[in-house]
Amino acid sequence: MAIKRKIINDPVYGFITIKDPLIFDIIAHPYYQRLRRIHQMALAYLVYPGAVHTRLHHSLGAYHLMCNAVNELRDKGTLITEEEEIAVKAAILLHDVGHGPFSHALENRLLPGVHHEKLSLQIMQAMNNDLGGRLDMAIEIFTDRYPKKFLLQLISGQLDVDRMDYLTRDSFFTGVSEGVIGYDRILKMLVVHDGELMVEEKGIYSIEKFLVARRQMYWQVYLHKTVLAAETMLVNVLKRVRHLSKTQAASLQTGGALDFFLYSFDGNMTKETLEKFCQLDDADISFGIKRWSHHTDYVLSELCRRLLNRQLLKIKFQAEPFTEAERKAKMDAAIKQLNISEEEANYFVFTGEANNTLYKPEYESINILLKDGSVKDISAIDNPLIHQTISSAVKKFYICSL
Amino acid sequence: MAIKRKIINDPVYGFITIKDPLIFDIIAHPYYQRLRRIHQMALAYLVYPGAVHTRLHHSLGAYHLMCNAVNELRDKGTLITEEEEIAVKAAILLHDVGHGPFSHALENRLLPGVHHEKLSLQIMQAMNNDLGGRLDMAIEIFTDRYPKKFLLQLISGQLDVDRMDYLTRDSFFTGVSEGVIGYDRILKMLVVHDGELMVEEKGIYSIEKFLVARRQMYWQVYLHKTVLAAETMLVNVLKRVRHLSKTQAASLQTGGALDFFLYSFDGNMTKETLEKFCQLDDADISFGIKRWSHHTDYVLSELCRRLLNRQLLKIKFQAEPFTEAERKAKMDAAIKQLNISEEEANYFVFTGEANNTLYKPEYESINILLKDGSVKDISAIDNPLIHQTISSAVKKFYICSL
Amino acid sequence: MAIKRKIINDPVYGFITIKDPLIFDIIAHPYYQRLRRIHQMALAYLVYPGAVHTRLHHSLGAYHLMCNAVNELRDKGTLITEEEEIAVKAAILLHDVGHGPFSHALENRLLPGVHHEKLSLQIMQAMNNDLGGRLDMAIEIFTDRYPKKFLLQLISGQLDVDRMDYLTRDSFFTGVSEGVIGYDRILKMLVVHDGELMVEEKGIYSIEKFLVARRQMYWQVYLHKTVLAAETMLVNVLKRVRHLSKTQAASLQTGGALDFFLYSFDGNMTKETLEKFCQLDDADISFGIKRWSHHTDYVLSELCRRLLNRQLLKIKFQAEPFTEAERKAKMDAAIKQLNISEEEANYFVFTGEANNTLYKPEYESINILLKDGSVKDISAIDNPLIHQTISSAVKKFYICSL
Amino acid sequence: MAIKRKIINDPVYGFITIKDPLIFDIIAHPYYQRLRRIHQMALAYLVYPGAVHTRLHHSLGAYHLMCNAVNELRDKGTLITEEEEIAVKAAILLHDVGHGPFSHALENRLLPGVHHEKLSLQIMQAMNNDLGGRLDMAIEIFTDRYPKKFLLQLISGQLDVDRMDYLTRDSFFTGVSEGVIGYDRILKMLVVHDGELMVEEKGIYSIEKFLVARRQMYWQVYLHKTVLAAETMLVNVLKRVRHLSKTQAASLQTGGALDFFLYSFDGNMTKETLEKFCQLDDADISFGIKRWSHHTDYVLSELCRRLLNRQLLKIKFQAEPFTEAERKAKMDAAIKQLNISEEEANYFVFTGEANNTLYKPEYESINILLKDGSVKDISAIDNPLIHQTISSAVKKFYICSL
Repeated sequence: MAIKRKIINDPVYGFITIKDPLIFDIIAHPYYQRLRRIHQMALAYLVYPGAVHTRLHHSLGAYHLMCNAVNELRDKGTLITEEEEIAVKAAILLHDVGHGPFSHALENRLLPGVHHEKLSLQIMQAMNNDLGGRLDMAIEIFTDRYPKKFLLQLISGQLDVDRMDYLTRDSFFTGVSEGVIGYDRILKMLVVHDGELMVEEKGIYSIEKFLVARRQMYWQVYLHKTVLAAETMLVNVLKRVRHLSKTQAASLQTGGALDFFLYSFDGNMTKETLEKFCQLDDADISFGIKRWSHHTDYVLSELCRRLLNRQLLKIKFQAEPFTEAERKAKMDAAIKQLNISEEEANYFVFTGEANNTLYKPEYESINILLKDGSVKDISAIDNPLIHQTISSAVKKFYICSL
Repeated sequence: MAIKRKIINDPVYGFITIKDPLIFDIIAHPYYQRLRRIHQMALAYLVYPGAVHTRLHHSLGAYHLMCNAVNELRDKGTLITEEEEIAVKAAILLHDVGHGPFSHALENRLLPGVHHEKLSLQIMQAMNNDLGGRLDMAIEIFTDRYPKKFLLQLISGQLDVDRMDYLTRDSFFTGVSEGVIGYDRILKMLVVHDGELMVEEKGIYSIEKFLVARRQMYWQVYLHKTVLAAETMLVNVLKRVRHLSKTQAASLQTGGALDFFLYSFDGNMTKETLEKFCQLDDADISFGIKRWSHHTDYVLSELCRRLLNRQLLKIKFQAEPFTEAERKAKMDAAIKQLNISEEEANYFVFTGEANNTLYKPEYESINILLKDGSVKDISAIDNPLIHQTISSAVKKFYICSL
Repeated sequence: MAIKRKIINDPVYGFITIKDPLIFDIIAHPYYQRLRRIHQMALAYLVYPGAVHTRLHHSLGAYHLMCNAVNELRDKGTLITEEEEIAVKAAILLHDVGHGPFSHALENRLLPGVHHEKLSLQIMQAMNNDLGGRLDMAIEIFTDRYPKKFLLQLISGQLDVDRMDYLTRDSFFTGVSEGVIGYDRILKMLVVHDGELMVEEKGIYSIEKFLVARRQMYWQVYLHKTVLAAETMLVNVLKRVRHLSKTQAASLQTGGALDFFLYSFDGNMTKETLEKFCQLDDADISFGIKRWSHHTDYVLSELCRRLLNRQLLKIKFQAEPFTEAERKAKMDAAIKQLNISEEEANYFVFTGEANNTLYKPEYESINILLKDGSVKDISAIDNPLIHQTISSAVKKFYICSL
Repeated sequence: MAIKRKIINDPVYGFITIKDPLIFDIIAHPYYQRLRRIHQMALAYLVYPGAVHTRLHHSLGAYHLMCNAVNELRDKGTLITEEEEIAVKAAILLHDVGHGPFSHALENRLLPGVHHEKLSLQIMQAMNNDLGGRLDMAIEIFTDRYPKKFLLQLISGQLDVDRMDYLTRDSFFTGVSEGVIGYDRILKMLVVHDGELMVEEKGIYSIEKFLVARRQMYWQVYLHKTVLAAETMLVNVLKRVRHLSKTQAASLQTGGALDFFLYSFDGNMTKETLEKFCQLDDADISFGIKRWSHHTDYVLSELCRRLLNRQLLKIKFQAEPFTEAERKAKMDAAIKQLNISEEEANYFVFTGEANNTLYKPEYESINILLKDGSVKDISAIDNPLIHQTISSAVKKFYICSL
């Protein structure tokens, strides 16, 4: 009789309300609970000490925005059935369930060739089994097989609640107020027209603000040079571990599920390996780094010690690629300073490109519903600031060194 | 020539400014960096998903409030030399450096008989060696050997910046707005009179608010029943591990520094064991729980699995102790349900007391400087709400069970 | 076809959404627009410079909370028809429409014997005529003639959205953070049981916070001694004007609607006088004070100049009444200092009581719905802090003087 | 002995501290207190109901930012003597003291040919007389006769605390979060180099945010079309009053100081007229509008009634000027609808340009201090977003009509 309702305190939105039995069951599932143990922003906390929020917290936040979005759209006359409402909420809760430890940094490195979205889908399917098929519609929406396209656009589009939450939440926890996007006003400007999600004309300034705030988040946070230095160091740790494992696997074992993925995984995600994957979280990596900081291999232990103690590599950004001469000079210095070989020095001196392809700003396609009822793509709107933001260079070159 | 200055973004206070070389050196020290890997609120994130902030973040916050407090007091004419200023800032940065993993929950359990304040002092002394004695005055203040008592009172008193920060920060990250204490106004009301830290009379309502907010934090957060259930489960995990280690130590090894403290530590903190202690952080416990969740001992693996998957024990609070009959009934049920022995059932069914002695509200001694220049203890102030808050019962009894 | 929707920016709640035609029509009515020109907090801005928000803003805020309350209650299964929803929103919008200029200070002084609630009802009825009877149900609810009692309790009860908004808003604009009541959590704790509005048991701490915050607002803001001094001065200005008008009416005319109410109103509110009343706003009083600051009567001009230039009377608070001797001493001083008669000195020296009867805290009757389904009045709840707050002395004596 | 200190609650910054005797004396002066009665944003509250903050509140806020700016610059090694500190604080407090009623809307209309900055200086000089010359240095700074240029740049430059406060405060009270400029970070990025105020290189993103936020404030708030419609109506009210006064002055008298400036002022600001000017505030205009809403002249009373009741003229914006044909069509409609002459219709139908020259964004000259010690103007910085913001078209054409 009594309707079960639960309120979760969220410093970002105040309160998140849960009331559907399916939502309760998803949240209670161990595969979902695992997300508590994965940082949303990998190593960004080395620069922004508050940025220790988790993937679970982000997905709850995205769920909350989805609740608001559904209410707003219904209020404007869009038909969303109760079943669709629950399905789209379930889908957003699970959209990131395939993320592995430090996934922002280790994307494509821990499980080469396995994308987190594909993993999310596999895990959703496994959970769907456990939940007796109650995720069927959520999976249809997630895989673009459901007729109402706007439901997927709310999960994964240019103005989806996923990125609205992560930008808002990352801005909140880092304390980078330049990244405040104004999610509440954007939500109020959403509208469904001809079955597609779009933005009302009077929301142009909100979109302008959103794009500028996102741009600020890229350069101040996601591509912050110190964060980048730390994340490339972490990548190199795993690279070194894999390299060493060919000859001295035993000494590198951590005793956890990570061992399997580092030394045995063939890229084939079976039911058993999926289960194993769901045992991984940030603690496996953190624990590994601490262990390896005592390893006899100098390169490995040095990288790990530096990561632990925040003695990061120096990093330099510029608009043009670095020359081979510059790299060579820094290599020579490293070889000399640490008394290591050239092959080893490559772990401390390297170049690369920072860009925001993860966030795909170059592919913007936000539709604006004009007051006269016509629809324009945002790139056709007379707003130089928006054009500039969309088309701005988003690539920088970096060199890391001692 | 250029003064080195660094600004750290903090979602709670906006920006934290660092400029003294000693403060830079403390923060760069591995013993301090370790605090990044220890949650401030142990397992509270199981109820409040945002409560994942770290001890490093808290100590930076307390440092920031100390900067403000020093400015306010100087502005009111209190003499604080530049050397004292840096010393008291160093001391507050390090006041919690002796905390171990999940220390809120595991206080006195991981290292029985070793208090975190004593450890903090030992670690400060070790760092003082590394820093060439530059922490001498900070240690004098910390150990109450420095003549200006108010400097210690700012670190550890009834209105110190330590608790001002943790209440503010914990309230912020949990999203429990009832716990907002109004630190900024309290700071403006502080005054030094006859060498002692006290509060101006016009700050009475701020103190009232502070006490009420703190009370709300106890019952809504620090002693939240679900948090308590989780933390007692964690205590029982370690208890079980220790119990089993007498007969099957090898199977329980995690491979990290934790092994030493679980199985070999004799309570004697030498230079070597201190160094080892400083290798411990939350990842050791988290990793241990994941490993032990596969252990052959049913009690251990079940407790660990439940912690991992947030399938917590039920907990009931009441003002009176639970009767033996109640406990017995729940024991019988547990024995039957899990098919375990009585000795084993004690890990799942147990009673205890929740009180806020950790936060010592019963011992309040806040001095108020009246407008006429006289000083009164807060208990002598005509404010029924303050009296009530100070004297309110702060003990509840609980029973945990399946 | 397109549904008309309007979003109003509100610094307190973010956005307020309007979509019902009746709500649009009420807001557009001149009687409602008049509330833009009446400060919510009378002269409190002399102490809190931000407290210049208007009665219109407050009533829009209360309307917003009503929208939320209706959604919450429906979400918990309470039946509220669409017609009732609009009626209760209309009623809350208009609940304060009868307030006159500086009504917090001048309540019962400008129109002796005419209560603002009675005026609100008369104005609602006049507007109902203009709106073709569309306010019928709103008036039924407002006058307690509608069967669903909880609708009126949402407008005017111990936890109504009126006081939730004014406490929240007044706290926001004054910047007195101690007055933050946590309206959002209280709203989530409301429930209708047996046709009555009550609070779920788990909302006890929210109620505790609400009561403590309200208490802080009384003493820090509503009964702030400087505000009280200013408001009693304003009362004395009108008293003096009335006194002088018997002999020198012409010189006191302002040329506006105020003249009628100061010099001619007989207490009988006809259609014409109601229309005239609706021409009054704060500007009439402000303009009057400026004119009278040049008047030949010393008492009047001096009081007005002091109000204009914030040269307020001194005020002293104490728990006991002031003695006649104290008053006499201050009277003598004033007579001497200003070279005025005893009768004139009474405008500068006077005693009185400050209490919070306007907000009636002594009459609390908040029902708590316990988890077991029973209902308890809050005074029967085992929470010493709540008892203390409810029963605390709320009366202080003051003396004003030069 | 005891240092007098006062803390003012400010919802925007928390607390504003005052402690210098001169600052107390300025604030207590009637000419300063007058600013309490002038809205900072004229008629913007017709769109943004919270935007009722006053010029006094803004100037206190700017004073607060000045306190912070002085501390930051000193902290970075810039020499600012105590006398200079107080002078620059006095100057910022008084920088807007010459504003008249609804000055944002009526700038140059109420006192044609008298600029508010010139008036501010005249009033500062009058106050300096009252204060025994203690404003000498403040006036030197204000009039650019003081050697340290950066002090004036803090008051009136491209990144002065005046605009930092008004943008922040206007954004806060309107609730337009897009206008949040991040004043705290900008303040931390200020530096004095070669005697000039500039911004550290790492502050580029803060400047970017500042410029974008300001741009949003122009179009969403300062040049909001409804606000513009209201303000042009107010201008037309005064125009009509002046027009009618040639033939029927008596009927237009309000009885206040406004009469002099509307009907007798010759543009020559003597000591007496300055004193009279300082009696003017928003109440004079508000009261006038109410009186004139009953005037026999249809145009005047209609404009006044519409302003009072928020029945504003329609307004249309576009990038190109409106054609004479368009204007003619709307004129004809107005003449017909209201049955008025063509001359009269001009008060209801008119065209104009909206631009942000008041805020002079086209003339940006923010100097950036690069890490290598060189200085670049912001227009030479490689940041397309900043270029775009600076150079964006800031002019729109409008037509008002019935």
